Amino acid sequence: MITCDKDRMEDKIVTFSKFGDAGHGGITRYSLSPEAHQARDEFVKRMKAIGATIETDDMANVYATIEGSEKGLKRIAMASHCDSVKNGGNYDGILGVLSAMEVLETIATNKIPHRHPITAMIWTNEEGSLYPPAMMSSGILCGKFKKEDMLASKSILDRTKTFGQALDASPYKGEEKNRLAPNGYMAMFETHIEQGPILEDAGNDIGVVTCVLGMFNYRVKLFGQADHAGTTPMHKRHDALFAAAKALCYLHEEIDKLGDKDLVYTTGEIVCHPCVHTVIPDMIDFSIDVRHEDPKVLEKVLAIVKSLDGKEIEKCTCKVEKAWARDTVYYDKKLVEYVKESVDELGYSNQYINSGAGHDAQYVSEVIPTTMIFAPSKDGHSHCEPEFTSVEQCTKAASVMLHAVLKADQK
Amino acid sequence: MITCDKDRMEDKIVTFSKFGDAGHGGITRYSLSPEAHQARDEFVKRMKAIGATIETDDMANVYATIEGSEKGLKRIAMASHCDSVKNGGNYDGILGVLSAMEVLETIATNKIPHRHPITAMIWTNEEGSLYPPAMMSSGILCGKFKKEDMLASKSILDRTKTFGQALDASPYKGEEKNRLAPNGYMAMFETHIEQGPILEDAGNDIGVVTCVLGMFNYRVKLFGQADHAGTTPMHKRHDALFAAAKALCYLHEEIDKLGDKDLVYTTGEIVCHPCVHTVIPDMIDFSIDVRHEDPKVLEKVLAIVKSLDGKEIEKCTCKVEKAWARDTVYYDKKLVEYVKESVDELGYSNQYINSGAGHDAQYVSEVIPTTMIFAPSKDGHSHCEPEFTSVEQCTKAASVMLHAVLKADQK
Repeated sequence: MITCDKDRMEDKIVTFSKFGDAGHGGITRYSLSPEAHQARDEFVKRMKAIGATIETDDMANVYATIEGSEKGLKRIAMASHCDSVKNGGNYDGILGVLSAMEVLETIATNKIPHRHPITAMIWTNEEGSLYPPAMMSSGILCGKFKKEDMLASKSILDRTKTFGQALDASPYKGEEKNRLAPNGYMAMFETHIEQGPILEDAGNDIGVVTCVLGMFNYRVKLFGQADHAGTTPMHKRHDALFAAAKALCYLHEEIDKLGDKDLVYTTGEIVCHPCVHTVIPDMIDFSIDVRHEDPKVLEKVLAIVKSLDGKEIEKCTCKVEKAWARDTVYYDKKLVEYVKESVDELGYSNQYINSGAGHDAQYVSEVIPTTMIFAPSKDGHSHCEPEFTSVEQCTKAASVMLHAVLKADQK
Repeated sequence: MITCDKDRMEDKIVTFSKFGDAGHGGITRYSLSPEAHQARDEFVKRMKAIGATIETDDMANVYATIEGSEKGLKRIAMASHCDSVKNGGNYDGILGVLSAMEVLETIATNKIPHRHPITAMIWTNEEGSLYPPAMMSSGILCGKFKKEDMLASKSILDRTKTFGQALDASPYKGEEKNRLAPNGYMAMFETHIEQGPILEDAGNDIGVVTCVLGMFNYRVKLFGQADHAGTTPMHKRHDALFAAAKALCYLHEEIDKLGDKDLVYTTGEIVCHPCVHTVIPDMIDFSIDVRHEDPKVLEKVLAIVKSLDGKEIEKCTCKVEKAWARDTVYYDKKLVEYVKESVDELGYSNQYINSGAGHDAQYVSEVIPTTMIFAPSKDGHSHCEPEFTSVEQCTKAASVMLHAVLKADQK
């Protein structure tokens, strides 16, 4: 069976890791930054070299397409993103772009026949790390977000510059008619790193993704009273940070009692006001992100989180607010089957897996048949500089996508 | 006995509360800001009106002096600051400036005889809320800080502009020879709000301050591993924020076991990295500020804090680092006696009290005889907008300072 080219893949990984290199093994490549534009320039250069046609849409998403043998057929897309979190790694997102490029390069080099046009694509602003929210462009194209709201999203760095201003300044801003949409596309594949330790622990090279886990994201807020650290007796205090520490410990204790080993929950963000060492904090606001495939389990956890609402903890009032929630999103059964058949035919060790992280594929799957392919993450790390997947594993993932795309092409 | 003027005091409180008015009852008046300069302008205008001579030194500290009847005597200073924390109140610092003005106005209006020159003074950057550290100018004048280090202090807002640049741009930057120093000054008094609930709870109008509490400030750091919130099984996590919550609860539990009701300790600042709701935090850094008059009690608490150093908490490593510490600073016995005699002669309810907060007076007391007078803080609040002391209480505090200054003048 034909496979993708390890050396060509390695060359791409090495080259793209330079765009936003933070100097200690990882990258910071915010969406629409000069570094993200360097990555697009390199993508376009390499795709033009194999004769692909380049298009961009109104969100600066970039498409490189090679024509198929039959006229009038819809395209098959392979897509991911090239932006990163702050001090992220060299694989999250970009591996899906490099794999898509590698598939087109393999098809072109080997003159593999195919009926449909096939497109490699870069999504703009998947991470939302400079301009929230995450999965912004796929969210707009698939009707999840209003474009005008997204254009107004402000940089988390200066709280002033908007995503719309960055977009207007981008040479990759194109026309709305070029968007990925159901009338022009029959399927989308996204190759991505697992971002967890499951494949590595099981010794498998490929994850055949079946769904994106359902989740909810809530904010827990504690309201106390700001007072001077040196002059306020302990019994008079309404210390919102101490209350938050107690609330966090309580949540861990109660949620762990459910004893569900597939459940994950995280407090990743904490905001403290006024956050001065000589002032007792009067407000703490922390996130809680909970994920599980089974909505019944999510409901049980939600009941625990909500039980804090209105409670008084260390003389502070607790408020619990919903940020967002989503149901488990199942990928297209046919496409999942093509991936499974491909990986088995290639003889790579594999397993079915779900995605705990959100991806552009999850929004796209609501309008176009979509699925994902996972490569292992060393030590399960992601969204950090030690992120690593070997060239062999990256190339295997691309080869699986190649054959899954060719199977879809034949139907 | 002659007392200060309530209406004149009220006019000053109302007027100065406009400089930096944040629109909901309090002020933000960073050091060397346009608002802080407005306060200096008003100070100068009013002091010139009573015939005082205005001087400024190289730190933009401002001095208004009325001459005494005898030539060649050292000055008696009354001083505090006009800068505030972010969203602070209308009394912290500025009350000491207004009281000093009120004493000079009372002396001038009533032609009260005095031998020594008497000076009302504004200290620059006591809060250190825009350019750390706190008590910057008194620290420089009293040999605690190197001036060049302080000039390099960067704005916490833009991390770029230095205190030195702000100082160069200030019309109040003057000459080093004008500094408050032992060769020219025999005493300094500082009137301040208590910033705690002790006077109010006891029903007393005046606090005769005897010392500034000894304290230490440490940083507790937890080092974990950043990973994706959706893809990392719970048993694989090294969650620095959960570890920090446990450490905080542990510290409260152990320190409270000491059962010392005069002990105060505070975690006011917490830094979370990377602080993204989808990422398990890999680093938390929180402050712990502990204050007590007795060094033996401080040692016991320090032993508890240090016991965390090197410990593993929820698979994260804990490091404990000293930020700074100071011993209890006792004020000048003679000056404390003058304050006590004055308040008793005026017939105001009073008590001895210590200061849990740091003040410029604490640095000055190491080079010049110094003491402080406290006015009550409603509900004990300070460093926040609800900060309040009635005009009557403010005027009483000024009257006590007037008589204490006059007693010092006669020795």
